[in-house]
Amino acid sequence: MPQIRKDLIVSRWVIVATERARRPAAFVDPVKHSTDSAHCPFCKPSAEQPLLTNGQVKVFKSGTPFFSDAQPFNRQKHGLYETSPSWGSHEVVVESPDHIANMADLPLEDIQKVFETYAKRMEIHHKDHTIRYVLAYKNYGVAAGSRPIGHARSQIMAVPVNPIRVKDKITGAKRYFDFHERCLFCDLIQQERKDSSRVILENREFIAMTPFASRFPFEVWVIPKRHSCNFAQGIAGNENQLAQIMKELLLRFKVGLKDPAYNYVIQSAPFENGGGYKRYPTIEEDYHWHIELTPRLTRVAGFERGTGFYINPIPPEKTAEFLREIKI
Amino acid sequence: MPQIRKDLIVSRWVIVATERARRPAAFVDPVKHSTDSAHCPFCKPSAEQPLLTNGQVKVFKSGTPFFSDAQPFNRQKHGLYETSPSWGSHEVVVESPDHIANMADLPLEDIQKVFETYAKRMEIHHKDHTIRYVLAYKNYGVAAGSRPIGHARSQIMAVPVNPIRVKDKITGAKRYFDFHERCLFCDLIQQERKDSSRVILENREFIAMTPFASRFPFEVWVIPKRHSCNFAQGIAGNENQLAQIMKELLLRFKVGLKDPAYNYVIQSAPFENGGGYKRYPTIEEDYHWHIELTPRLTRVAGFERGTGFYINPIPPEKTAEFLREIKI
Repeated sequence: MPQIRKDLIVSRWVIVATERARRPAAFVDPVKHSTDSAHCPFCKPSAEQPLLTNGQVKVFKSGTPFFSDAQPFNRQKHGLYETSPSWGSHEVVVESPDHIANMADLPLEDIQKVFETYAKRMEIHHKDHTIRYVLAYKNYGVAAGSRPIGHARSQIMAVPVNPIRVKDKITGAKRYFDFHERCLFCDLIQQERKDSSRVILENREFIAMTPFASRFPFEVWVIPKRHSCNFAQGIAGNENQLAQIMKELLLRFKVGLKDPAYNYVIQSAPFENGGGYKRYPTIEEDYHWHIELTPRLTRVAGFERGTGFYINPIPPEKTAEFLREIKI
Repeated sequence: MPQIRKDLIVSRWVIVATERARRPAAFVDPVKHSTDSAHCPFCKPSAEQPLLTNGQVKVFKSGTPFFSDAQPFNRQKHGLYETSPSWGSHEVVVESPDHIANMADLPLEDIQKVFETYAKRMEIHHKDHTIRYVLAYKNYGVAAGSRPIGHARSQIMAVPVNPIRVKDKITGAKRYFDFHERCLFCDLIQQERKDSSRVILENREFIAMTPFASRFPFEVWVIPKRHSCNFAQGIAGNENQLAQIMKELLLRFKVGLKDPAYNYVIQSAPFENGGGYKRYPTIEEDYHWHIELTPRLTRVAGFERGTGFYINPIPPEKTAEFLREIKI
């Protein structure tokens, strides 16, 4: 059973593997391999029952979960420290039955189904009062933290605590709303559309832009134009619009940056108590869900580690221009 | 002139390069090279005057600075956003005249001089009321964000704002002190020495341990046993003790993990107004300086990016045991 542990200083939680822990020597020279279709675990018919099937898309429990339902969340003190069993759900979304590596190369309908699937799983977790946050995200390529299997998939983590980065974002958005009585993200979209130097593309429902204070080269945010704090509710009926803008962006990455590794993370509001917002009563007004999409082209170094202050070697206006001009 | 920009949501500052910005195409296939002594810029006599010379150790202004004294810190609004010229100091500490890559292989006396040098530069910046924070840190190896030059060096950044991670740490330490009227780090050392499962080694002045909630495999904290919030004051007279424990740790990394890339960052208190603590009047009691040392063996993936919640694939008790048993 993996443990989660709380860092005393910055209230950050950490998962610590136990049974599935790697031996120290295993870090010395990590195994590198890439898998063809014949050896791909996601091409074989699975012995496991999927948690959900949505067209071509299937969701499975992770074979090596960092969260599980084996033991309930139960915080225990060890002197100054605190631990708990790592209660929650760790799911793999297999995006296609075909051995296609990059989501960019999936048909539009399949990408739409992937986002629909995230929403469906989130709504199921939403009803569970032991779950505080659900993150749907993708690691594509070894530099993005993925194993080199070459079969498009993403992950869903349902966790029993509200993560620090989510709290930081909520706090920031609330501070702005408290003062202005307007949503920070709605104001930001308005300013970005007027300025246009950081806008990459838009469709009816979404805008894709490089954030003003981008941490990483080619960092992109995809923001819904209609205010909604919650991904599952926000995309209902607009899944095809999201799929369209994401496919377009991912193809531009593939063509313009020669198939880079990338991550995306869906930044939705936390929830609790079966759908209510007891801890965040004003979150529906304050917060605005969005997606962060970042190719992995540089390394985070000591300065970022020591300060949380990032160094970005290229202005976001330049990367927006570059991505606007890619022909696919 | 690089800019620094503030992220509206989490109050995080970002440096954005302008003149020294890389072209978008430069990210497509980064140049990889390693430099022998004949081509090493740090082996040649420098045309620049050093900012400071301390035995074998020389400090220079960075040739490609992210902070400079060309224009003063001056926050300006652009609609919702804010920018400023990137006022500050970006310095390179050349640790030896010899072409030795890893600090582990320097003589003990030279390592001592490196830490002394950080303290000297910090004390100089300490007198400058435009500087809020100074970070001394090292990137060793490409995976740690260094260029592959193969000549031991580290960096000092003096910045005009107090970085988010520093604030988070101070806030956490203060919260603990406010309740217990004891220093969090002093209590932590006491508990760790009693437990001993995460202690790697100790000398008269310092303890080296893997933190309870380690974010990364083989993450190590080096903490002074005597309470002090400030690196420069804290190590005065104990530089040799710090050099000894750091050399020992770095040699154990080199032998046990086969010369991995690593970063270390010195986490000292911020300062302002020529040495006073107007904004943090109780920081001398609340905070306790320390060093974070982390080999770069894994990649941060989407989950960490999206939540600030880390996944560590090996328990710190296992890595402490491994590092304790390395024979050098």
